[in-house]
Amino acid sequence: MTDPWHLLDLRSVNQPIWEHLLEQAEVLTDRRDPLLAGKRFGMVFFNPSLRTRTAFEVACADLGAHAVHLQVGGGLWSLEHRDGVVMDGPHAEHVREGFGALSRMVDGLGLRAFAGMQDIAEDARDDVLRAAAEASTVPLLSLESAMCHPHQGLADALTVRRKIGERAKVVVTWAPHIKPLPLAVAHAATTAFAQEGHDVVVAHPAGFELEAGVLADAARMAKRGGGSLTTTNDRDAALEGARVVYAKSWGATGHYGDAEAGARAVQSHPDWLVDPAAMARTDAAIFMHCLPVRRGVVVADEVLDGPASVVLDQAAARLDVQKATLCRAMGVTA
Amino acid sequence: MTDPWHLLDLRSVNQPIWEHLLEQAEVLTDRRDPLLAGKRFGMVFFNPSLRTRTAFEVACADLGAHAVHLQVGGGLWSLEHRDGVVMDGPHAEHVREGFGALSRMVDGLGLRAFAGMQDIAEDARDDVLRAAAEASTVPLLSLESAMCHPHQGLADALTVRRKIGERAKVVVTWAPHIKPLPLAVAHAATTAFAQEGHDVVVAHPAGFELEAGVLADAARMAKRGGGSLTTTNDRDAALEGARVVYAKSWGATGHYGDAEAGARAVQSHPDWLVDPAAMARTDAAIFMHCLPVRRGVVVADEVLDGPASVVLDQAAARLDVQKATLCRAMGVTA
Amino acid sequence: MTDPWHLLDLRSVNQPIWEHLLEQAEVLTDRRDPLLAGKRFGMVFFNPSLRTRTAFEVACADLGAHAVHLQVGGGLWSLEHRDGVVMDGPHAEHVREGFGALSRMVDGLGLRAFAGMQDIAEDARDDVLRAAAEASTVPLLSLESAMCHPHQGLADALTVRRKIGERAKVVVTWAPHIKPLPLAVAHAATTAFAQEGHDVVVAHPAGFELEAGVLADAARMAKRGGGSLTTTNDRDAALEGARVVYAKSWGATGHYGDAEAGARAVQSHPDWLVDPAAMARTDAAIFMHCLPVRRGVVVADEVLDGPASVVLDQAAARLDVQKATLCRAMGVTA
Repeated sequence: MTDPWHLLDLRSVNQPIWEHLLEQAEVLTDRRDPLLAGKRFGMVFFNPSLRTRTAFEVACADLGAHAVHLQVGGGLWSLEHRDGVVMDGPHAEHVREGFGALSRMVDGLGLRAFAGMQDIAEDARDDVLRAAAEASTVPLLSLESAMCHPHQGLADALTVRRKIGERAKVVVTWAPHIKPLPLAVAHAATTAFAQEGHDVVVAHPAGFELEAGVLADAARMAKRGGGSLTTTNDRDAALEGARVVYAKSWGATGHYGDAEAGARAVQSHPDWLVDPAAMARTDAAIFMHCLPVRRGVVVADEVLDGPASVVLDQAAARLDVQKATLCRAMGVTA
Repeated sequence: MTDPWHLLDLRSVNQPIWEHLLEQAEVLTDRRDPLLAGKRFGMVFFNPSLRTRTAFEVACADLGAHAVHLQVGGGLWSLEHRDGVVMDGPHAEHVREGFGALSRMVDGLGLRAFAGMQDIAEDARDDVLRAAAEASTVPLLSLESAMCHPHQGLADALTVRRKIGERAKVVVTWAPHIKPLPLAVAHAATTAFAQEGHDVVVAHPAGFELEAGVLADAARMAKRGGGSLTTTNDRDAALEGARVVYAKSWGATGHYGDAEAGARAVQSHPDWLVDPAAMARTDAAIFMHCLPVRRGVVVADEVLDGPASVVLDQAAARLDVQKATLCRAMGVTA
Repeated sequence: MTDPWHLLDLRSVNQPIWEHLLEQAEVLTDRRDPLLAGKRFGMVFFNPSLRTRTAFEVACADLGAHAVHLQVGGGLWSLEHRDGVVMDGPHAEHVREGFGALSRMVDGLGLRAFAGMQDIAEDARDDVLRAAAEASTVPLLSLESAMCHPHQGLADALTVRRKIGERAKVVVTWAPHIKPLPLAVAHAATTAFAQEGHDVVVAHPAGFELEAGVLADAARMAKRGGGSLTTTNDRDAALEGARVVYAKSWGATGHYGDAEAGARAVQSHPDWLVDPAAMARTDAAIFMHCLPVRRGVVVADEVLDGPASVVLDQAAARLDVQKATLCRAMGVTA
């Protein structure tokens, strides 16, 4: 038996598969056609979702497949992922049995398991996702893990293709928040734009560095694609000449395990909010955000509601790329 | 682009559309036919549901469409609806982005957002529903808001057509409860029966007046249809000659924001429970209630379990009218 | 009107229906075929679920039907089941109206309502399930109640047919836990293996007796099938010659209503954990468990991960038997 195809992190997607997925996403846009008739996709969410879940349910319906939604804490007990432990705590079932059993009932699985933001090494290993991948005998798609949000990255790359259509300066800029958030989306966007060969600039205050391995992989990818990857603490300089401003808040990994210090840190740079003045520094850039977004904290209403904002196009692209990954997981080419 | 058709409040449904919906409901009864093949309907519930959700899921399945169910607090974060606020509180996403993004993935949307029962002006404005309607680029159906429960009203009108079949005296009678409930169903039933040209009597103890604008609109509608609308605090007189007794509890708006006083108020008139003696005053009336209903508090078991009760027929009619509004929202005539 | 077919407890399934269900389960294995096109199945869960819910959703999708999932506490209010009470407590709706209304919208219903573990007589009567069965005008399938888990028992019988294929010594053995669990699965497995005519041995420490009526019925069934039913407190003796070890924890009914004493009791026999030494006493038995299972508490990792374990095959068989009960409920033979 060959291993099933899992989509866990964009860092391990090679260039041919990357191109295949984005091409298929275009082919599948607006397509309602029973390409996946009879297939079933099981989704396990450890965390809430609006876009990811809806897009997968709709993608399945559009292609004739059926999606099952399981929510930990909402009709599903919590799952243990560690090996070799005596399960005398709060977890009623191990990921091995849970994903093993689901693998016997569906043709593909999805898992959302956000960063715990307590133990940086644990988050970097993406333990829950890896345990589920190990237990699944059908393809497993990450619906966002501690380290990556692959479908967001794919949708973001597709949106830039559609809106810009050429190699461009893309700024992934840290934004303020009320509490520390995971790094998954920032990792995904950075990796995706690097994969596309853009000139990617990651801008953030000191202390908000992305994971070093992600940056190293993204730099390699960008270079191979004819682009570049740089990081900076100078947002003004970063915005000069930018065609894309991609805003996202994330927590300082130095404050892992200390929610109060983490909250203070993300509240300490209110000037990083993306406002019209910031956008004015760019080369008529589009404004991107993965959503959900806090208005007046991350971005000014004028920017989000203005003509430069493509956030709803990003959301729409989620449906297209998720159709593509579902088809690949189910062994179908459109 | 023309505005999408939204169904938010029965007060703004004109007579031709009202007739169309009820006629289509009859045509669509027991129909399992892929009239809506390939369509997707997204439902966002801020509050619980049994009938509304099941009827929409089944209506979609019966007609070949797919329904997605999102539950705030059960896999979906809470949504801000106010404009211009800095979102540094509990709400992770604004209705604009939430419903804007969903509009890109589905062909129709539904929203349930009950009355907050704190601020009477806010409830009267139906702020959440209006914000969602503004943000939605596809038709939006209210699944009950602060001010109205349009699908309940439609089902109630249809049930009276089926059971009585002619202009009749219909009493919407307030009933006791353990806590103050929203006025949406009382508004919907009153408006629906007025729209049908019945002789509608709204009976309640002093202090439990329905919203003045609803009563004014309902009076106009009833008159146009050859009927009438009156209100009274004398339930015994109201029941004389009634062919329909429609029981429902609702809170006294004078106690808005004071849950204890509100609870005392709805517990202060236990004699308004609908019992066999009350039914005996009528002209062999049918007994109606939207459900869920508290036995022994709102209505006596003997009435609810007796031959006059049509509450399960009302529930069944929900499926029929919801098929009709779905079809209209999706631009299909059966 | 004839009464609908309900599947509430395996004790009341006669031999021809039992055989029919297991034969249909084999016929329906891996079948994706719209035998139930246009049908709708409504599931009400008072408790969490992974396998039962997923298997029913997938079974419906595979056969062209649609499943609706309602979760008490997760978008659905709680339901009263007692007759004649004044509903002034936490329950917003009575099972009569809830299941009565659902019966008007779907072609079959399912209900999960675990044991309350407070009042042994109440659990023995399976009050919630019986009230729902009374209120449902369409077939009702138990998705596990206080007294039985019929689909688990069916799947277990099917798994033993597939793995052993002949009359065998089957040991249903009590296992340790961190808290007292209901007896439903132990009852179901015992009844199912008795129905199959195996030589069933129920092994448990003193104080953990199964319900007397279940044992009496199972003994009759086993005898009729050419097998036997015995109970013992001596696990070592029970395991001698066993071809099947079916582990399951359950609470001591003597501690009903006292969670602390109940927890102490199930923690007092850690040597009943199923480990390689226990398996070595058997005649190369397979290891079975209904899942979810606590590793290191109920069973050793070496057993669960070893070649004797068929727990994922049991899970897969759930899909097969649930297709069979759905088909029977909907009046279809494959």
